[in-house]
Amino acid sequence: MANIAKKVSWSGKNDETRGERTPLLNGSEEVRYNRQVPGLSCLCHEQSLLLSLSLCPALLEMQDPVRSRPKEIPHNEKLLSLKYESLDYDNSENQLFLEEERRMSHMGFRCLEISRWVICGLIGVFTGLIACFIDIVVEKLAGVKYSVVKKNIEMFTEVGGLSISLLLWVVLNSAFVMVGAIIVTCFEPIAAGSGIPQIKCYLNGVKVPRVVRLKTLVVKVCGVICSVAGGLAVGKEGPMIHSGAVVAAGVSQGRSTSLKKDFKIFEYFRRDTEKRDFVSAGAAAGVSAAFGAPVGGVLFSLEEGASFWNQMLTWRIFFASMISTFTLNLVLSVYHNKTTELSSPGLINFGTFDLECVQYSLYEIPLFICMGAIGGLLGALFNLLNYWLTIFRIRYVHRPCLQVMEAMMVAAVTASVSFAMIYLSNDCKPLKMDNSEEYPLQLFCADGEYNAMATTFFNTPERSVRSLFHNPRGTYNLLTLGFFTLTYFFLACWTYGLMVSAGVFIPSLLIGAAWGRLFGIWADPGKYALMGAAAQLGGIVRMTLSLTVILVEATGNVTYGFPIMLVLMTAKIVGDYFIEGLYDIHIKLQSVPFLHWEAPATSHWLTAREVMSSPVTCFNQLEKVGTIMDFLSNTATNHNGFPVIVQASGEQVGKLCGLILRSQLIVLLKHKVFVERAHSRLHQRKLQLKDFRDAYPRFPPIQSIHVSQDERECMMDLSEFMNPTPYTVPQETSLPRVFKLFRALGLRHLVVVDDVNKVVGLVTRKDLARYHMGKHGLEELHLAQM
Amino acid sequence: MANIAKKVSWSGKNDETRGERTPLLNGSEEVRYNRQVPGLSCLCHEQSLLLSLSLCPALLEMQDPVRSRPKEIPHNEKLLSLKYESLDYDNSENQLFLEEERRMSHMGFRCLEISRWVICGLIGVFTGLIACFIDIVVEKLAGVKYSVVKKNIEMFTEVGGLSISLLLWVVLNSAFVMVGAIIVTCFEPIAAGSGIPQIKCYLNGVKVPRVVRLKTLVVKVCGVICSVAGGLAVGKEGPMIHSGAVVAAGVSQGRSTSLKKDFKIFEYFRRDTEKRDFVSAGAAAGVSAAFGAPVGGVLFSLEEGASFWNQMLTWRIFFASMISTFTLNLVLSVYHNKTTELSSPGLINFGTFDLECVQYSLYEIPLFICMGAIGGLLGALFNLLNYWLTIFRIRYVHRPCLQVMEAMMVAAVTASVSFAMIYLSNDCKPLKMDNSEEYPLQLFCADGEYNAMATTFFNTPERSVRSLFHNPRGTYNLLTLGFFTLTYFFLACWTYGLMVSAGVFIPSLLIGAAWGRLFGIWADPGKYALMGAAAQLGGIVRMTLSLTVILVEATGNVTYGFPIMLVLMTAKIVGDYFIEGLYDIHIKLQSVPFLHWEAPATSHWLTAREVMSSPVTCFNQLEKVGTIMDFLSNTATNHNGFPVIVQASGEQVGKLCGLILRSQLIVLLKHKVFVERAHSRLHQRKLQLKDFRDAYPRFPPIQSIHVSQDERECMMDLSEFMNPTPYTVPQETSLPRVFKLFRALGLRHLVVVDDVNKVVGLVTRKDLARYHMGKHGLEELHLAQM
Repeated sequence: MANIAKKVSWSGKNDETRGERTPLLNGSEEVRYNRQVPGLSCLCHEQSLLLSLSLCPALLEMQDPVRSRPKEIPHNEKLLSLKYESLDYDNSENQLFLEEERRMSHMGFRCLEISRWVICGLIGVFTGLIACFIDIVVEKLAGVKYSVVKKNIEMFTEVGGLSISLLLWVVLNSAFVMVGAIIVTCFEPIAAGSGIPQIKCYLNGVKVPRVVRLKTLVVKVCGVICSVAGGLAVGKEGPMIHSGAVVAAGVSQGRSTSLKKDFKIFEYFRRDTEKRDFVSAGAAAGVSAAFGAPVGGVLFSLEEGASFWNQMLTWRIFFASMISTFTLNLVLSVYHNKTTELSSPGLINFGTFDLECVQYSLYEIPLFICMGAIGGLLGALFNLLNYWLTIFRIRYVHRPCLQVMEAMMVAAVTASVSFAMIYLSNDCKPLKMDNSEEYPLQLFCADGEYNAMATTFFNTPERSVRSLFHNPRGTYNLLTLGFFTLTYFFLACWTYGLMVSAGVFIPSLLIGAAWGRLFGIWADPGKYALMGAAAQLGGIVRMTLSLTVILVEATGNVTYGFPIMLVLMTAKIVGDYFIEGLYDIHIKLQSVPFLHWEAPATSHWLTAREVMSSPVTCFNQLEKVGTIMDFLSNTATNHNGFPVIVQASGEQVGKLCGLILRSQLIVLLKHKVFVERAHSRLHQRKLQLKDFRDAYPRFPPIQSIHVSQDERECMMDLSEFMNPTPYTVPQETSLPRVFKLFRALGLRHLVVVDDVNKVVGLVTRKDLARYHMGKHGLEELHLAQM
Repeated sequence: MANIAKKVSWSGKNDETRGERTPLLNGSEEVRYNRQVPGLSCLCHEQSLLLSLSLCPALLEMQDPVRSRPKEIPHNEKLLSLKYESLDYDNSENQLFLEEERRMSHMGFRCLEISRWVICGLIGVFTGLIACFIDIVVEKLAGVKYSVVKKNIEMFTEVGGLSISLLLWVVLNSAFVMVGAIIVTCFEPIAAGSGIPQIKCYLNGVKVPRVVRLKTLVVKVCGVICSVAGGLAVGKEGPMIHSGAVVAAGVSQGRSTSLKKDFKIFEYFRRDTEKRDFVSAGAAAGVSAAFGAPVGGVLFSLEEGASFWNQMLTWRIFFASMISTFTLNLVLSVYHNKTTELSSPGLINFGTFDLECVQYSLYEIPLFICMGAIGGLLGALFNLLNYWLTIFRIRYVHRPCLQVMEAMMVAAVTASVSFAMIYLSNDCKPLKMDNSEEYPLQLFCADGEYNAMATTFFNTPERSVRSLFHNPRGTYNLLTLGFFTLTYFFLACWTYGLMVSAGVFIPSLLIGAAWGRLFGIWADPGKYALMGAAAQLGGIVRMTLSLTVILVEATGNVTYGFPIMLVLMTAKIVGDYFIEGLYDIHIKLQSVPFLHWEAPATSHWLTAREVMSSPVTCFNQLEKVGTIMDFLSNTATNHNGFPVIVQASGEQVGKLCGLILRSQLIVLLKHKVFVERAHSRLHQRKLQLKDFRDAYPRFPPIQSIHVSQDERECMMDLSEFMNPTPYTVPQETSLPRVFKLFRALGLRHLVVVDDVNKVVGLVTRKDLARYHMGKHGLEELHLAQM
């Protein structure tokens, strides 16, 4: 043990959390920082309180094995923020790795490159197939449901007793949703919602536990089928992105830990750097299959994930996206017996806009901007309501049975409200000859007519969107659209955040299309419905470039590109004025250490010295096994990276010579790679890179490793396994500079050194993520504070 | 002067070039490296020889003022590769900068952000207007020319004597081209060609002299008008990208050095980092205006330039692109009296494909792949021929008068060949009623018929492309298409690289459309023409994602996305097997130190120690003015960055404490910011960031600065102006790791330090760029070797 390490060895600090956040252990630190950093307002009011309350059982279950520590941990350690570790996108270029790379021939690298392409192709195929499966099953189930209900309604319309039809509808919907909610809450709570916030976090570099496991995929797929078939105000598109990501994570590793099956292929890709690239491709393939938007998918992945743009990677992501939409297209075309047409590129298809109506005039541009503003406002309202609702849920609805009951209640209310709206509506339209309505409800309309309200409520949301885009002028009257917007808005808002797998894209599009059509009822309503849909969706999710492209691709026509961009931009600007995007709200509510694109603009006066965690636990290059064991198994600490130092004779403290990860140490301990004391020969076997890869990504917890008392006295030589060239910064480096380095290279640990290369601190993700721009300038989040 | 600095002060080395490249000065260095790096094959045969020959007067004129040194420099200093300096995308976060940033309020940053948006809007508007100007003038000139020639041909067809028509045509074309070639060769040789290689280099971080100046823009615009009107096999689309970039560089700086006009706005953006972002936006706006492809434009910029993807930046780039295509659309629609339609989003418009024909069947996919392979082969042939031709030109055609004559000759030959083809063709088709042919030539056809060959040759290339895409089946016969492909292929190949402003996109599309139509003559020829065009263009330029999106957007329909991607991918794979893309060939022939996305795969065994330039000239924090003057004015060196060291008492060599740039030192010297000897008070005025910004980017040469003998004895305190936290790496860092850091952060200098923070070397762009993958593994380019 080096002196510096000894001094701090039991300080009980989390290396991804600042000292002052655990005042019990070293409260004096906090005073120091508060003195050094004047003018920094602390955000420790309502929000921090909320964070500490957001401790629902479902989320606690998501803890990694590594983190499952004994019960006696102080309570503040259990805070959510500590749950999230970082992914390591910086290769640990240790001797083993370099040796392997140097051994590999030019041909070897070419084979690797080909495998990458093959994997991307497979990701595309599987993602496409999953999308097909979801689509076909949902269509079948919804078809059965609507036929049964329709028959029942028709039966009772004349004889009276429609309340029985209502009951039937409510029971059917609730039953579907119950099944969906039960599998999610019981088997895999991480599969709830759209999964987009989780994938955003993953691509950002946050390790969200269990997010890319096979079990999650299965639950997600079944869950989304149930919730869509259950008639909730949800879409099946968002979950596709998550599904694609899981497929990618599975395929690229060439094994499934859940199924205990290792195909012994693609072993080279078993590390965070490579896996992340494939997960990007998977997410893109998911978007591509959901919207028939391969370019939009690529842009989504890049916008959310990539910090370093690599041409070949992007091209591969694009390949996966293309294969995905093509697979979907092919399979669905074959399924629908339209093989030669290939006309279903995505789960949702906006249908073909007439080339004549597709034009817009100059005078319409202000109207579009105005619609964007409305979308921004409504989106902000949606997000605000959902924010309050989510807080309520975190506080009061955290037991699985309550969650299932809430989901069922929403399903019942959705069915009842729909029924009431249809029942009370007197908007009768003549039946068209071309049977474009799948389930026309006559209800109280004259023969040969149907209820217009029913086309929007008594249908899968995808079909309703398309009807709103393409039905000719006069299909809906003003009241129908108005009531529909209003009810669907609140239903969708209530639904998002339930413990069911479901996306928010389609409901947003539907709300927007409804009020957009209302807005443009005097003109070409389809065009305005499209703009309204874009505005509403943009106002809720606040995606930018990728959403523009997704919508353009889903429309199949580039002419609307400019107005859609204007609408989305306005919606974003207006919405951002009030509240963040929906996904960001949910990420924040889970207190994830999410890194934005740049450091806050006004943070130049902060330096690495203020930002870093210090002091740091360091190991010697030749370290005693007992010391390492004690460190790793100390439950009060959960350091994940340790600077390695070397001590020259005569010097008091050692100089930085490397960085080693907890996971690497655990593998070393497990394989007992010890140097016997006083001797200098290696004990037992020589470790290979394969041993690290086999353990990835579920490294065993330190508690599972047993070391005898004799072995504790042995030494471990870390020099071969540590990363000998970790990135470092001097203490005077400004926060934006540290941030840029950290973000651009996807680091997990950044060592801060003084002018003679001695370790003075360590910067991790949480140290950077806690500074953010508030309304009144720079704020510091005290995440772990009670 | 520190000891370390003294030791090496006159070693006469270029800090962006390795010692061994100037064997006259320290040839012993070379031996050392060759011994240290065994197995590294040196590429010092033909190519290096060629590089030394590519020393044409026009290119020499492009030297920066800084580089215009006395005549007695050894000859090898004049090599092209030394001409290119790096841009500095890493902010020099010195005290002045940090003070300014810290002073700035939250509101200040918001205003900056708004200015960025305003600038992007302006870039879009101006780029769009330039595109309109080019389009309208070309249409007018070409209209006049074709009308005159047509009238003449009609006059002489019956009476005989068509040779007079030929002569007229030849003279007209040559005259246009002569004007175009003269302005390019005499006024601004950098404006030759499409400008895409230059913009690629700029975005990559290479400072290409004079590439973004106003004069270049003027010459480019006039040049492209002349060459298109002169009937060369060129397009006006490529140059738009360059034009957009120049507009961006001008607008964002709020001043024009050429016009000696400083608007005193946007001063904050006067540095490489910010300017590069705007130039990306400008290039995107150019693509967008050229092809009506805003998303394609964004992707082009990202694919070619951005290494660090930033969401807001991308969104701004997209905004500029959208504004650009919208401006063009609006102005052209107003010009053509079609205000309500807004139907001209780009300079080239592929026209509307029928929705019925737009479908493709499964069985066609292998055909498309096959077409991709043909495109790859033909593209490789094109590139190879052009490569030989370029070498020939570099050797023998380097005097301006020869260059003008060659351009005129090409124009004359193009006109003659076209005439001969039309004359010899007997492919007569009945005239259509809708007058879709602008200049139908009857020639020897019966009344009511026209010559089909003339529709392709006797027309602007844009119109010919559209005709090939949309003319119904049977418009052209087999021979017409075959001969057209053949002749146009060689004409286009000969034309690219002439000293005229012109792009290669349209000729490639035209060649491809012709053979594609030939390929699909048995089926729907339009679809195959499109695929052929994509294949040929992809085979020549080898762009990937961005080209797919550009073509999809130009087609206006997303259905062809998948086949276009397949075609482009096949073309790239096949083409890359033989030779690089056209732009890369031209970049290589100018020996630009271009950094690719990643370090060569097999370069893990190289470390910073082998890669870096060493020893390095260092300055003390408090340095004598005379020493600095002597260093900077030593013509044998052209260091641009100097590590600054501080020397503790008792230590032999100093520790790194900062990095200062040549340009900063020059500004300091110019303003005489000296500390008088023995005293410690500052001389004269205090320097501000504004002084550095005013001097940017054309810093005066050291020769223009005069320092008296007294002043030479003064000291300069560099601590306030140097970057106190330069990025460093240890000597053991592997090349891929160094490369990643360098590329991801857009560095210009990376300091290599030992374990006690002493400077041991400096890595610059050229040190990294010279390692590349050859056919037989890693190769090292000795760029400056004679």
